[in-house]
Amino acid sequence: MYDTIIIGAGPSGLTAALYAGRYRLKALVLEKMVPGGQIILSPSIENFPGFPDGITTQELIDRMKKQVDEVEVPVENADVIGITEDSGGYCVKTQEQSFTAKTVIIASGAQAKRLNAVNEELFIGKGVSYCGTCDGPLFRNKEIIVVGGGDRAVEDALFLSGYASKVTLIHRRQGFRASEILIEKAKNEPKIHFRLDTVVEAINGGPKVSGVRLKNVKTSEITDFPCEGVFIFVGIKPNTEFIKNYLNIDETGFIITGHDLSTSRKNIYACGDCRQKTLYQVINACGDGAVAAHSVHQSILNHG
Amino acid sequence: MYDTIIIGAGPSGLTAALYAGRYRLKALVLEKMVPGGQIILSPSIENFPGFPDGITTQELIDRMKKQVDEVEVPVENADVIGITEDSGGYCVKTQEQSFTAKTVIIASGAQAKRLNAVNEELFIGKGVSYCGTCDGPLFRNKEIIVVGGGDRAVEDALFLSGYASKVTLIHRRQGFRASEILIEKAKNEPKIHFRLDTVVEAINGGPKVSGVRLKNVKTSEITDFPCEGVFIFVGIKPNTEFIKNYLNIDETGFIITGHDLSTSRKNIYACGDCRQKTLYQVINACGDGAVAAHSVHQSILNHG
Repeated sequence: MYDTIIIGAGPSGLTAALYAGRYRLKALVLEKMVPGGQIILSPSIENFPGFPDGITTQELIDRMKKQVDEVEVPVENADVIGITEDSGGYCVKTQEQSFTAKTVIIASGAQAKRLNAVNEELFIGKGVSYCGTCDGPLFRNKEIIVVGGGDRAVEDALFLSGYASKVTLIHRRQGFRASEILIEKAKNEPKIHFRLDTVVEAINGGPKVSGVRLKNVKTSEITDFPCEGVFIFVGIKPNTEFIKNYLNIDETGFIITGHDLSTSRKNIYACGDCRQKTLYQVINACGDGAVAAHSVHQSILNHG
Repeated sequence: MYDTIIIGAGPSGLTAALYAGRYRLKALVLEKMVPGGQIILSPSIENFPGFPDGITTQELIDRMKKQVDEVEVPVENADVIGITEDSGGYCVKTQEQSFTAKTVIIASGAQAKRLNAVNEELFIGKGVSYCGTCDGPLFRNKEIIVVGGGDRAVEDALFLSGYASKVTLIHRRQGFRASEILIEKAKNEPKIHFRLDTVVEAINGGPKVSGVRLKNVKTSEITDFPCEGVFIFVGIKPNTEFIKNYLNIDETGFIITGHDLSTSRKNIYACGDCRQKTLYQVINACGDGAVAAHSVHQSILNHG
């Protein structure tokens, strides 16, 4: 029986693993993909404290993984499908097997939200993408759009301007959630154009994307806009399907946690982008991971 | 008028400044000492995600400060003595002058708690210390004690064993709050000895420390124990004197905050070691700083 099983190896799960290892807990990390989580879909990170020149997200994750390796916490490749109670602890079920643990830390992260435009699903991989780093190089010298108004949208618009001949940033409002420093950079990039107060109603083309149908939300004017790529960054949805009937979650699926990151079940904690909070950044995902591991350690000290 | 004034330039205040700068807020950091906060009293940090070989605390702080410089948020040397309301915002008063701001982020940190042993105050600087890095070199080849059971106590016992001829770690219980990885290292260090279930009742000597009076809490046995140095790491007390009658604090002075790090007064936020939370580490102090700056940004976006 493990002291704790950590579900997910993004920044939050890796930091939880680092702390669990330093507490000498018998811990196991289960990750369905590769270590890193959604942040590795971004090329680099500028705002992680301690890296004044920025750092590629892969390098940051590699460094965190090395710290986890040093404290000898294993990271295994497995997709968790559910949690059940089991003899004073929990049974964490994956596609292939089950693991028992006294405590569980859910660090399952989040993924890109769909825009829910007409034909969006149909064109995924045929011009519709949720990952600039992954698919940017496919759009060299092509005209693309980026949809969204947060940090992620503006960061990726800047990154994609290194490949595309023209990037149009489409946002449903005038105001951006993104940091002003990013918006300034985007405004200073001649390849980037702005279409504000505008939503994408449908994606056109066949078999590949050839354009989008835009609607101005102020004037209700509809226009067809030609483009070959549609990059969508309109927020995240938590990867919490596997516990949605087991733990208290909010209406969008984020896990509700207390100050110590406890969930609605004793000895199950949640940290990082899968929990309801006000800011979803790598630095506070890491902070969360440390807090969750500390809570697990306290719980095991106090209850054996 | 500033958008925000950040009180304190430890890891939490510097991260808040980095984020505030990236949001292009007009921000000012006020620090009464030098950037770094209490963490620079420790020589190095092993558990900050992203630094697998560890990093000296001074280097980590220098890197964070560089990031704050890059986003052009000034850090000024000033000791804040109080906050008052002022024309829709706040007036932050220092010894010399006053600054007005729409919002305030309190990142004033914490400092070492006193043991409250007899003669403790009397011997500060004469053998009693709260900082291994500062005073360790003064105890080369001398016998010292370290008092406490958390990470900080064990880390500093290990550091001090590089100078002292003998380090006795005195802790009031059997169990440690410190990470097991640190306890193992201490047990493997021949210069470090343990005295558990033991408290320091008084400090003896004159004019310098010559020993301590110990009491075993299980047997009530009293012994005089010779030593020249007494390093005390028994927890922290928050630097919140200047707002204790202005904001809701708990019985030990930590500021009570909500999920967005709001305090009992609108547009005043608190982050890092000055607020009530379950874990006081650099990584979650940084996470806190980002969350507080984000809350300030949201507040300014929504209310002008």
